[in-house]
Amino acid sequence: MKNYTIGIDYGTLSARAAIVDCENGNEIAAKELIYPNGVMEKSLPDGTPLGEDWALQHPKDYLLVLTQTLPELIKESGICPSLIKGVGVDFTSCTIMPVTSDGMPLCFKDEYKSQPNAYAKLWKHHAAQKEADLINEVAAARGEKWFASYGSRISCEFAYPKILQTLREAPEVYEHADYFIDAGDWIVWMLCGQQKRSACIAGFKYFYTRDGYPSREFNAALDKRLERLGEEKLNAPVIFAGQKAGEVTEEMAKLTGLEKGTAVCCAMIDAHAAAPALKITRPGRMFAILGTSGVFIIMHEDAIPVPGILGNVDGGTMAGYIAYEAGQSCYGDSFAWVAENFFPREYAEEAAQKGVSAHTLLTQKASLMQPGESGLIVLDWFNGNRSILNDSELSGMILGINLNTKPEEVYRAFMEATSFSTKVIIDNFIKNGISVDSVYATGGIAAKNPVLVQMLSDVLQLPIYLSGTSQGGAVGSAIYAVQAAGVFESLDDAAQAMGSIREEHFEPNLEVCGKYQALYKEYLALHDYFGKGGSDIMHRLRKLKN
Amino acid sequence: MKNYTIGIDYGTLSARAAIVDCENGNEIAAKELIYPNGVMEKSLPDGTPLGEDWALQHPKDYLLVLTQTLPELIKESGICPSLIKGVGVDFTSCTIMPVTSDGMPLCFKDEYKSQPNAYAKLWKHHAAQKEADLINEVAAARGEKWFASYGSRISCEFAYPKILQTLREAPEVYEHADYFIDAGDWIVWMLCGQQKRSACIAGFKYFYTRDGYPSREFNAALDKRLERLGEEKLNAPVIFAGQKAGEVTEEMAKLTGLEKGTAVCCAMIDAHAAAPALKITRPGRMFAILGTSGVFIIMHEDAIPVPGILGNVDGGTMAGYIAYEAGQSCYGDSFAWVAENFFPREYAEEAAQKGVSAHTLLTQKASLMQPGESGLIVLDWFNGNRSILNDSELSGMILGINLNTKPEEVYRAFMEATSFSTKVIIDNFIKNGISVDSVYATGGIAAKNPVLVQMLSDVLQLPIYLSGTSQGGAVGSAIYAVQAAGVFESLDDAAQAMGSIREEHFEPNLEVCGKYQALYKEYLALHDYFGKGGSDIMHRLRKLKN
Repeated sequence: MKNYTIGIDYGTLSARAAIVDCENGNEIAAKELIYPNGVMEKSLPDGTPLGEDWALQHPKDYLLVLTQTLPELIKESGICPSLIKGVGVDFTSCTIMPVTSDGMPLCFKDEYKSQPNAYAKLWKHHAAQKEADLINEVAAARGEKWFASYGSRISCEFAYPKILQTLREAPEVYEHADYFIDAGDWIVWMLCGQQKRSACIAGFKYFYTRDGYPSREFNAALDKRLERLGEEKLNAPVIFAGQKAGEVTEEMAKLTGLEKGTAVCCAMIDAHAAAPALKITRPGRMFAILGTSGVFIIMHEDAIPVPGILGNVDGGTMAGYIAYEAGQSCYGDSFAWVAENFFPREYAEEAAQKGVSAHTLLTQKASLMQPGESGLIVLDWFNGNRSILNDSELSGMILGINLNTKPEEVYRAFMEATSFSTKVIIDNFIKNGISVDSVYATGGIAAKNPVLVQMLSDVLQLPIYLSGTSQGGAVGSAIYAVQAAGVFESLDDAAQAMGSIREEHFEPNLEVCGKYQALYKEYLALHDYFGKGGSDIMHRLRKLKN
Repeated sequence: MKNYTIGIDYGTLSARAAIVDCENGNEIAAKELIYPNGVMEKSLPDGTPLGEDWALQHPKDYLLVLTQTLPELIKESGICPSLIKGVGVDFTSCTIMPVTSDGMPLCFKDEYKSQPNAYAKLWKHHAAQKEADLINEVAAARGEKWFASYGSRISCEFAYPKILQTLREAPEVYEHADYFIDAGDWIVWMLCGQQKRSACIAGFKYFYTRDGYPSREFNAALDKRLERLGEEKLNAPVIFAGQKAGEVTEEMAKLTGLEKGTAVCCAMIDAHAAAPALKITRPGRMFAILGTSGVFIIMHEDAIPVPGILGNVDGGTMAGYIAYEAGQSCYGDSFAWVAENFFPREYAEEAAQKGVSAHTLLTQKASLMQPGESGLIVLDWFNGNRSILNDSELSGMILGINLNTKPEEVYRAFMEATSFSTKVIIDNFIKNGISVDSVYATGGIAAKNPVLVQMLSDVLQLPIYLSGTSQGGAVGSAIYAVQAAGVFESLDDAAQAMGSIREEHFEPNLEVCGKYQALYKEYLALHDYFGKGGSDIMHRLRKLKN
């Protein structure tokens, strides 16, 4: 008898549910639902206008995935529901909403249907910047221990600013809310009738550390009314990645087409959910999510204090391991900056003529060059430095320019710089006792730019593997669910069977490693000089700027 | 009775002669001749093809200015030739040619009319790069004292590479040549029948220093046949700026329409000739020629060893004073680099729509910003650094970039950087005992970009005056000529009467001086760190590049 599992990947504009074969990870059937209410940026469904930078969603749309997409998917697949052993969910995060004690979103209530703060604030809701500023200020002033784990500077995309905005703008909603909960955790609750918080979400988005949520004192320093936030409105058991949250209830079984008692797995942040789909289930394998920014996650058996990283989350990727996270606040974004600004008209014309993007044209030209040929070294701190310097006030630098310096040379130097800063992160892990023997990469940059991935392999002198599926979220969630259901003995067994990586992978090209080593030495010297106190000019320039 | 004087400004494509009123410097009449043979880059007049990077001229064209333009000018002006007291010449330099002992250019001879090396090599003749490379190599290896005065790196535009090329490619021409002479000195010779070399030309273009021309040993190290170059083929009296070379001969009086005995003045390099037209006839007034590169000349009574400058030339600007020269190898060129590369399509479209150049658009946008607002600091070493670091292997740097950095911010940072590097030069002069109390600027950048000139004034905290005439070369040559003729008691008197500066000048804006001081401090710290040995990374990157 075959076993199956379902992964539901909740994205920004749609959700996609897939039935996955436990034997090989193949998607047997998949179905997508585009959220009827989409991203609400201008107004609520009743016409209530929204301010600048708002981005809301309607949780009804999330439920529709359970009550409409799932039954259709199961029916069309022809698979007997009893063979579907588990269901796992990943979600864009932090996507947060206020709910009552029985899990009802406040926006479902008539009294709040015109109140924007009662809806789900999507990850990219940016209207709580004032609140983020205050949090940064207060946390820095108080020297909050957890603050350093988040790079000593948090963005308005985290949970806290969004909650604080609700309190300030709609105190009645804050008061009425029994919980503020991330949408992924809420879906899990709806499925199994029990509220369980994901360690991955709580750890990476809610300032939840070994010491719990931020203290009463900190909360009160933000706003007296916020004092008991952690114990009153976030308080629910936290479980590890791949752990079972509960079982599908009778009511939800009827609505979804799943069998009652089907295992429901701990929710995951969407990008993180892909880990087992890439067979990342053991220490040594660096999980690299290379998108607009860069996220690097590595597991280790023990909790080791590693300086300069974004903290660690027990069970954030897998029960039994600590997930260590480091990050580059600017990865693909830095290439975008070159392509947008350092791209003169004749290049734009050449790209148009060849029918390729600016990135493709610049990458093609850059790929013809040797390491060091541009004569440039770039410090890629265009959005500050998250790891390992943990300093958002740093800025970027291009050194070695002459009158013949061309856009593709700058582009290549940016590619080299992001590779070098990845090496800084990996070397820092290794130096602190956390081994890294290979890289498993996903994300837009990894999928689209093999020239960059090869360069990264050459710089790191490590093999790099890429995801074998473009649906890492859904497949990864399905694998987590199968683990929760106990189909395999371990998550590793499940991932080995169901995960996939591309056959062609990247091995370091030994011919160029030496050149990159020489360049890296130069990068590191500048990195330390401008980043570790040799010169404080970047901070002084920022002060002069403001 | 009024007195008049004639200045002839020999440019790249044409020469322009002007009759100037000694009372006020007004141009009474002027006439231009476009060289019939222009710049010969593809072939000689008889069809002989030229190689890559050649740029020749036909000295017949220069003579035509004397025998055709001058008589017409004088006749049309209606001025009695006896009232024309002097004639002065300035010329693009180094424009060099081989001549016989009576001054006949070898290209006038039938036997050499198909030999490219017998013609005048224009300043921008770039086909002697191999020879320049050899000279750089040998001079560096031998530690030639004069070499440091030329920035320890000479370009192929100097006299020596052009002479060496002649020797190597056409040894018969080299042998036959009694002299190699700059075109300006040759015109003076033709007018007055005596060969007198200009201190300005010899000092700035022929490696002529207090110790004379480079030694036999150095010459022989380049090529045995070159050993006696200085004493045999360059050897003629060197005279100071404004000194009389001789008087118009009877033969030339007939051909030019000038009176026999009219004073003929020492030739000048074209850019340098403008000094008295800007009333620069005394110490303290920095003469700044702001073009693609930057040239800075200041006079002082004594010969003082000033480190990091391009050397000094006794009488190079005015008899009785030492002219000290410093330079930036990249001035307008650096703005051109931004405008060409860092100028995305929407900017190009905006400029086209407004009907302005890239430079104008970027300057307009940059002018709306405050000092330091960009958060950027640039090291403007895009073509190495001439003064005061004297290091052609340095390269440029942009520090402080973030994802919002815009082209106009980079452009402004480049403007600030060129201003800061001018301040480094001026401060270096002052520190070494040479006072600078004001700046008198000419050149394309000075004339076209008042935003930049105001910024320069703010940074230097010095007033800046601009030339009152766009014909600084011709008017300056005319003033030098009047001095040679003895019309005034001193060059200063002549310049006060005949020179002109624009009424509106630039005074430092005290409101922003403080901000620039703070930024300059940062610039200087980077300047010293990367330029004075704190980090040798720029040299190492250049080695990795090659």
